[in-house]
Amino acid sequence: MNSIRRVKFFASCLLLLTLASIAPAYSADALPSWNEGATKQSIVSFVERVTTQSGKDYVAPAERIAVFDNDGTLWSEQPLYFQLFFTFERIRTLAPQRPEWQEKPAVKALLVGDMKAVMASSERDLFELVIMAHAGNTTEDFNKIVKDWVANSRHPKSKRPFTEMVFQPMLELMAYLRANGFKTYICSGGDLDFMRAFAERVYGIPPEQVIGSSFKYSLGSVADPLAIVIQPKLDVINDNDMKPVSIHRAIGRRPIFTFGNSDGDHAMLRWTAAGSGARFMGLVHHTDGEREVAYDRESKIGKLDKALDDALAKGWAVADVKRDWRVVFPPEKK
Amino acid sequence: MNSIRRVKFFASCLLLLTLASIAPAYSADALPSWNEGATKQSIVSFVERVTTQSGKDYVAPAERIAVFDNDGTLWSEQPLYFQLFFTFERIRTLAPQRPEWQEKPAVKALLVGDMKAVMASSERDLFELVIMAHAGNTTEDFNKIVKDWVANSRHPKSKRPFTEMVFQPMLELMAYLRANGFKTYICSGGDLDFMRAFAERVYGIPPEQVIGSSFKYSLGSVADPLAIVIQPKLDVINDNDMKPVSIHRAIGRRPIFTFGNSDGDHAMLRWTAAGSGARFMGLVHHTDGEREVAYDRESKIGKLDKALDDALAKGWAVADVKRDWRVVFPPEKK
Repeated sequence: MNSIRRVKFFASCLLLLTLASIAPAYSADALPSWNEGATKQSIVSFVERVTTQSGKDYVAPAERIAVFDNDGTLWSEQPLYFQLFFTFERIRTLAPQRPEWQEKPAVKALLVGDMKAVMASSERDLFELVIMAHAGNTTEDFNKIVKDWVANSRHPKSKRPFTEMVFQPMLELMAYLRANGFKTYICSGGDLDFMRAFAERVYGIPPEQVIGSSFKYSLGSVADPLAIVIQPKLDVINDNDMKPVSIHRAIGRRPIFTFGNSDGDHAMLRWTAAGSGARFMGLVHHTDGEREVAYDRESKIGKLDKALDDALAKGWAVADVKRDWRVVFPPEKK
Repeated sequence: MNSIRRVKFFASCLLLLTLASIAPAYSADALPSWNEGATKQSIVSFVERVTTQSGKDYVAPAERIAVFDNDGTLWSEQPLYFQLFFTFERIRTLAPQRPEWQEKPAVKALLVGDMKAVMASSERDLFELVIMAHAGNTTEDFNKIVKDWVANSRHPKSKRPFTEMVFQPMLELMAYLRANGFKTYICSGGDLDFMRAFAERVYGIPPEQVIGSSFKYSLGSVADPLAIVIQPKLDVINDNDMKPVSIHRAIGRRPIFTFGNSDGDHAMLRWTAAGSGARFMGLVHHTDGEREVAYDRESKIGKLDKALDDALAKGWAVADVKRDWRVVFPPEKK
């Protein structure tokens, strides 16, 4: 190159480098599984606004807290909450060694495969199954038990591992937020220790950023005086009004970005919206019966009714699966 | 410079830069308030071991969790837990508007300044005072109330703000750990919302890294349907066996570095020690009656007895205030 062109070339490089260093960290490819449209635009526009230092909506990195529900938001919850599939599998595995469980109608139904009868059980009986599957384990043992289940179990419909029934667009969204200085948290009604067994590997969410329901714990087992043991007593049911409370206890900051999918997330979304400055509220609306399952107002699992009305009235983002997601689940591994 | 000397000079610069980039981030000046000796050496040696990538004790940054007790470890707890001074001040402020409180013996004693009688109250009556001072406030109001108290109140003996009754060597220790990729947490029996009002400014510990005792919360007040309100009911008493449990719930990782000062921290220290790989357990032993207060086995506040025996038997670090701390409190502001 002659010297004038060389100067121009280096000047362009310098300009590009400068622009790259001050532009928010995103590219048109950061969210490839999201179709172009208002929902995707609202996400990108929000992130640009809170990361632009000269803008009025700038938020310092320490306050860039993003909170996600899990069931129905990050992974599927159909035909049942996946933690129930874990529970049923665990009861089946343990029942032979627990003759006293055979008396329980829900267990009997489970063992003969009468899932209709199992799901018709009272909430109290179902809940007792969950306790039976969780309690008595040290947190370390329970972590291994869940990891084994993750490795070996398959979704009844797709035959994929449950941890592949995650929503690809939401994985991209979380990675995009983290690339822009956000801390991504889960705030779920699911069990804390259950989710921690896979959240880091599957979602990039470390254990200290998982908030969930939990049982009481005690310190010390027969084998190990310093093991933490899951007790057969609920401590926190992390749903509805409890979600903002749990977020306050765990984080002590109000999120600026919150995504849910059901009425159980309504309080958390309204609480986020009540904060000052720029706030993003999003709902996943399951509208795609072909690629996934379509459900909302009438569903027993993940019912979405009042929160959807509120979202539409207030202009919260609604990620309509059929309309907004080019891809639902990650590609199958060969 | 001639060209040979120039080459040597630049080679030395390059060598220095290379060494600086691979050496652990510390200097002899990182802990200036610690006297040279075995305690300081054990801290520095531990940090070097876990940050040296080629070493057998290397710990990845995500696992570099350091947990500190607060009362008696990061700030003084003499002559009383400072949160009690806050409680008493709050009761005095509110009592005129709460005629029904006047019936209570502990309140009456407080209002006439009979501190002997106050401290002779039953644990239950004292605890009721704490509830009275905390409950009913939104978390946002309570945060302001504590900040006001911090700004306006003075330690009865030193006449300094309570947030200046912090231990300078521990501030340096936490900064040094953070410079080496550690996340510093508090795990205290003190109230979560009380500590969050000053922990970031005073200790560099953000709200999501504060673990404490807490009351139940509910969502919604008369004035604000989305305010989080402190309820007059204890939820977590974060002491003894509860500390490892709280750490598990909040972090989901076992710390590699834990510092306490009393028997209330013994379980947390033993739990830390039971982890695999390099672990650091430390106690502050208050031995300096001149610069601070000397107390341990006989003290009602911050009793240190069994944990000290265990520390000495097992070779945990014991920071003897008289011997190991060149400076106790930060210099007075002019």
